[in-house]
Amino acid sequence: MKSRIERVLAHMEERGLTQMIVSDPKSIWYLTGVDVEPYERLFAFLIRRDGKHAFFLNRLYNVCDTGFEEVWFSDTDDAIGMMADRISVGEALGIDKEWKAGFLIPLMERCAGLKVTLSSDCVDDCRAVKDAEEQAKMREASRINDLVNRLASEYVKEGMTEKQVAAFIDAEYLKHGCSGNSFTTIVSFGANAADPHHEPDETVLKAGDCVLIDMGCVKDRYCSDMTRTFFCGKADPEQVKIHDLVREANERAEALIRPGVRFCDIDAAARDYIAAAGYGAYFNHRLGHFIGQTDHEKGDVSSANTRAAEPGMIFSIEPGIYLPGRFGVRVEDLVMVTVSGCELLNREDKHWRIVG
Amino acid sequence: MKSRIERVLAHMEERGLTQMIVSDPKSIWYLTGVDVEPYERLFAFLIRRDGKHAFFLNRLYNVCDTGFEEVWFSDTDDAIGMMADRISVGEALGIDKEWKAGFLIPLMERCAGLKVTLSSDCVDDCRAVKDAEEQAKMREASRINDLVNRLASEYVKEGMTEKQVAAFIDAEYLKHGCSGNSFTTIVSFGANAADPHHEPDETVLKAGDCVLIDMGCVKDRYCSDMTRTFFCGKADPEQVKIHDLVREANERAEALIRPGVRFCDIDAAARDYIAAAGYGAYFNHRLGHFIGQTDHEKGDVSSANTRAAEPGMIFSIEPGIYLPGRFGVRVEDLVMVTVSGCELLNREDKHWRIVG
Repeated sequence: MKSRIERVLAHMEERGLTQMIVSDPKSIWYLTGVDVEPYERLFAFLIRRDGKHAFFLNRLYNVCDTGFEEVWFSDTDDAIGMMADRISVGEALGIDKEWKAGFLIPLMERCAGLKVTLSSDCVDDCRAVKDAEEQAKMREASRINDLVNRLASEYVKEGMTEKQVAAFIDAEYLKHGCSGNSFTTIVSFGANAADPHHEPDETVLKAGDCVLIDMGCVKDRYCSDMTRTFFCGKADPEQVKIHDLVREANERAEALIRPGVRFCDIDAAARDYIAAAGYGAYFNHRLGHFIGQTDHEKGDVSSANTRAAEPGMIFSIEPGIYLPGRFGVRVEDLVMVTVSGCELLNREDKHWRIVG
Repeated sequence: MKSRIERVLAHMEERGLTQMIVSDPKSIWYLTGVDVEPYERLFAFLIRRDGKHAFFLNRLYNVCDTGFEEVWFSDTDDAIGMMADRISVGEALGIDKEWKAGFLIPLMERCAGLKVTLSSDCVDDCRAVKDAEEQAKMREASRINDLVNRLASEYVKEGMTEKQVAAFIDAEYLKHGCSGNSFTTIVSFGANAADPHHEPDETVLKAGDCVLIDMGCVKDRYCSDMTRTFFCGKADPEQVKIHDLVREANERAEALIRPGVRFCDIDAAARDYIAAAGYGAYFNHRLGHFIGQTDHEKGDVSSANTRAAEPGMIFSIEPGIYLPGRFGVRVEDLVMVTVSGCELLNREDKHWRIVG
């Protein structure tokens, strides 16, 4: 944990920052091991280059011996005032992206002239590169995800509803020791799959429908996320063509990943291939996102990201083609950058397949 | 919905505000009927006194025909710039408490000299007073909660784990048509109940333990929340005394509720009674919180809130006594202020009772 704080301090120094408020509970756990779900209450960790770090803790939190200075308050105390006392008003204050206006604006009002600056990256860039312990947890979460995806593909039958299949997946996660889902399980039949964020409803599976399953679990705090698309009973030539196209785009992008390759170039490998086949307009989202303690962490695989991959980074590769009113196909893996290439965290076969 | 926006505009006028950003998805649904789960993406509704309201929508959201001006963007667009174009930089901009620094700070940087001010209350004070449709939904959610609480009290047996009882409750909610929990079900046995926010674990129920169950469901978007405390197999005189004390504190507070009574006085009715019995130090949280679409909404029943109750307000009354290392008792109802007094949304008996 100490080395994680050291890495954040190094990032702060690069940006000329002497103080920063970390409010994302997952970042705070990452840096200190202190685990709190604050709901609407204030919970923050102040990192200072002079070493005077401080925790801001409501007396309701079940926390002891953090190893840092602890500033305790009750619901009726002036917690923002206590925080203001520990901030150097003459120097810029970094703030992470999760902190809510309900705390930030009162703090700015308390500290007239204080310059605030968004500095999430100081923490998020550390979180983006997983250490060995995190890598092991991410592998395990994806191992379970592969297994449950396989079980779901065997379970799904014509006549079932999307909700029924999603409930099966959610129950299997619990049976396999997960604490829950990393996001609401997506099961989309037929035309519903043309909406990338469709939520499972009472739609009944019919022969000839596509079956898009986008799923992820949380195991030991860390997330998995994968998508496979099947066809129920039969597949027509266009469905097969689209599926092959999407899978090939997925594989072309994955084949490119190694340290030093820019994320925009990884995105382009999939996007250009789909565009060349005439379906560019139907792939309307970024190719992937970083993942770790939450399903969507800072960092994406998109045309806008010119940064380069580094060993230990873990992200999704998830091209899709969505034909409104008809069907949709997405094929998604999690991948980890290694020193010489990349490791696929999902091993489940991704070719088109008949189910049901 | 139109009348809800009119009420918000009236609050804005009172505060001299001409423009405000609403970012809480539940507030946006409340005002417009548009239902989006944005995760980490920008989703906002700009309310302007000149009537030029605008929605800021990512193309991934499944939304159409909002009835307002729609500003659409993709992940790679400069959405904050689009927002800046629609804000009057010379006038103060209201911001709700939920908006994240990741959007607020870039917007402030884009609009040099813009004064931002926290104005959640313009919306939250409307949401705090439930209209007839909302009242009906809140009653129904608490009716189910009473029922499932009764079933749980019949289900719990010596030898069961906290997790097992919590899982029973969660499953019953789904059977009764709820979409889920309004918060993580709390089941605390024995000394675990001395931590008000204990999470269910593998602790096994023994004869003589208290059984504290704090639970809530979501039905048609609206929440319930209640606590009952039982004893397994037997209760000793001190347990009975503490339970009677807490229940009596709950009833004294509830007896006081009618329009015009200040929340600090309602809090005092319970707190002073517990303090007079010598247990003041062991009741270490506010008496209650407002509730609606989320379990904890703006507004609390505490010594710090000098505002007065109004008809249609719904909140919890939940005194507790927590004896570290030994046991804890909490008795909680939801109540709604009526024109002449208050209606208890929970009808389940709250006297101490032997279970298991």
